[in-house]
Amino acid sequence: MKSDMETLAAKGRVAKAASHRLAYLSTDIKNKALHTIADDLLARKEEILTANRTDYHEGEAAGLSAALLDRLMLDNSRLEAIAGDVRAVAALADPVGETFETRTLPNGLQLSKRRVPLGVIGAIYESRPNVTVDISALCLKSGNAVILRGGKETINSNLAIVRVIQEACHKAGIPEGAIQFVENTDRALVNQILKMNDVIDLIIPRGGAGLINFVKENATMAVVTGGIGVCHTYVDKSADLEKATAIVYNAKVQRPTVCNALDTVLVHADVAKSYLPMMAKELNKAKVELHCDKRALDILKADTSLKLKPAVDEDWGKEFLALIAAVKVVDSLDEALEHIERYTSGHSEAIITEDCQSAMRFLNEVDASCVYVNASTRFTDGSQFGLGAEVGISTQKLHARGPLGLKELTSYKWIIVGSGQVRP
Amino acid sequence: MKSDMETLAAKGRVAKAASHRLAYLSTDIKNKALHTIADDLLARKEEILTANRTDYHEGEAAGLSAALLDRLMLDNSRLEAIAGDVRAVAALADPVGETFETRTLPNGLQLSKRRVPLGVIGAIYESRPNVTVDISALCLKSGNAVILRGGKETINSNLAIVRVIQEACHKAGIPEGAIQFVENTDRALVNQILKMNDVIDLIIPRGGAGLINFVKENATMAVVTGGIGVCHTYVDKSADLEKATAIVYNAKVQRPTVCNALDTVLVHADVAKSYLPMMAKELNKAKVELHCDKRALDILKADTSLKLKPAVDEDWGKEFLALIAAVKVVDSLDEALEHIERYTSGHSEAIITEDCQSAMRFLNEVDASCVYVNASTRFTDGSQFGLGAEVGISTQKLHARGPLGLKELTSYKWIIVGSGQVRP
Repeated sequence: MKSDMETLAAKGRVAKAASHRLAYLSTDIKNKALHTIADDLLARKEEILTANRTDYHEGEAAGLSAALLDRLMLDNSRLEAIAGDVRAVAALADPVGETFETRTLPNGLQLSKRRVPLGVIGAIYESRPNVTVDISALCLKSGNAVILRGGKETINSNLAIVRVIQEACHKAGIPEGAIQFVENTDRALVNQILKMNDVIDLIIPRGGAGLINFVKENATMAVVTGGIGVCHTYVDKSADLEKATAIVYNAKVQRPTVCNALDTVLVHADVAKSYLPMMAKELNKAKVELHCDKRALDILKADTSLKLKPAVDEDWGKEFLALIAAVKVVDSLDEALEHIERYTSGHSEAIITEDCQSAMRFLNEVDASCVYVNASTRFTDGSQFGLGAEVGISTQKLHARGPLGLKELTSYKWIIVGSGQVRP
Repeated sequence: MKSDMETLAAKGRVAKAASHRLAYLSTDIKNKALHTIADDLLARKEEILTANRTDYHEGEAAGLSAALLDRLMLDNSRLEAIAGDVRAVAALADPVGETFETRTLPNGLQLSKRRVPLGVIGAIYESRPNVTVDISALCLKSGNAVILRGGKETINSNLAIVRVIQEACHKAGIPEGAIQFVENTDRALVNQILKMNDVIDLIIPRGGAGLINFVKENATMAVVTGGIGVCHTYVDKSADLEKATAIVYNAKVQRPTVCNALDTVLVHADVAKSYLPMMAKELNKAKVELHCDKRALDILKADTSLKLKPAVDEDWGKEFLALIAAVKVVDSLDEALEHIERYTSGHSEAIITEDCQSAMRFLNEVDASCVYVNASTRFTDGSQFGLGAEVGISTQKLHARGPLGLKELTSYKWIIVGSGQVRP
């Protein structure tokens, strides 16, 4: 263990040194490395898939759930998708070096902000091996060094993938040490990572609420957290009820286990009697269980084919991550806004309305990373938003909010060019 | 004390409630409030100056230094300057509501980022009463509520100023509670403020290293810190030595007690013999004490009129805040860059050179908030940069770097407008 601690400290020093050279590496070299990584992930797929089978078998033996096994499993088509994501990152504009807010002061000083990498990113994540590739690719393109610490369930896959990535980086001329992987999955090493504020500029936890809260409470450096989504969709009295039905169904059913899935439907009282039966019938196709407040229950209870329960206090503000939705009838947009203000996790919130005033008020007054009019909250995603991959989704307000892409992995410095100016 | 704690909690709740309405207040109302504040600060100057005289006399009686007494003292012309700053903030563009990075996705979703206030800002600061006005004005214009906690040395001045500000806000139609002031200057209440992460979105400490480190270590919410500046100026072999002399003199002497003042001069060996005597003679006009490495000392020691000392290890990376500079001869730009990398506090660094390659390398490779070519580091300042006033200078990389103006007191939210889109 002591030697693992020393190894980790050494990896930190190497990553820091690499970060200084990565900061002003040409876009060409970074893109060449990304294409080499994509090529080699496919050329060496047997090595990766063999390692992944070991993880899979060990997971089976350890009694992992089918859902977890599915998350960690790689096959040809998943590897091809992962390589495709890397090429997508290569195709994105390089954020580093972008100059903005340029101005010339009256005294002739030329002032601008220049986008620069953050330095060294720490990533602590669970299960899916594609995260190893996504985060490596985004850090590389944004000129950051990275220290990766994946979950023990995918340790063999991650080791094989990181070997391919590191060798590809070497071939492409990336400074050694740009991508570091912590091989020991002991919790004690996570604690040590969280103390390395002399090396790591930003730590990103990706996983369940337990991991995220642990990192938030114990990190000594900046943390960008998110990933917990209590998502509301409010069906206004002027909503197009067909649209509302399709959007609510999509937001709840298309992938219920993720953070941008719908949790609570708020329905205006004026349309509750016409809308709720339509919505419930549609959601019932996917056997969605509805936890209804009294008014919603009164409207729906006649239909005995539905899965209904009376809502309890804990249903409001709950992230279900399952085929369950809370349903509440409200008397006004104001009541919907108050409910959302009280229970939002600041992730994604939607209004379904044809009324411009209601849409504008909702956009103005809801305080969340992503605020929607007439669309499914499931779109909150770096790829869907056209940012390439994402290293996570931030629900905080400082630095970056919503999907974290390349630009969100950068800072800026002020560049001031003069010809001898002094301050009077 | 218990009732003060309860009062503080109540102030927090009121500020939070106000922040929701401030977030979408019209620019006109905010500007009207700022002009009313500026008018009333002058109209009620007797009230403010009387309170300030109480602070001054109490400070004298408590044996405050002349420098501290000067910092807290207000008079007609200082009040006029403060009112002028408020009008300058009113004249700046409102950052709130700015829409950027707009795009339409292939599925027709219209995506944009909209700038929004952070919510509630906490400001913990020392001595100068103008900070009360500056921070209030910037928070108001950027749509944030603020909880102010000033130092005990200026409690009477601050109370008078805040009364004027709050009444002006009331007249102008600003939501009640937008500007809160903590009257009890007990340290225990600072601790409580640092625990209010359900209310305060960002805390800004302004003061000495002791205060800043205390806030950084104990805050449970986001903190933007800075204000510690170990500033280097490197005189390259191709420097215009006249410019270098004027810039170094200005950076060191114009106001030596502030964070953007020069601390260390690095001089290329090729010009050390010609430059150092020029520089030392100029700095000697202000009786600057030079802590010289061996080579610099060998060049300068013949001139017995100079205040010279051999540099010790602690001189490198030291923020002097006084008429003292460390001086070191280096053999190359590389050595200068290495020295700066090792000792920088990430505030402001400068190169004096006529060589484009050297300038480019310095701008690329130095990792600091503000990097200068041929100008004095004294320019690192929100007003000098044209941002209006500033709430502080950040030396961190997350969120904002360098002077913090209006824009740096904002976040953004993603606005997604659709017409029924669902995720496939």
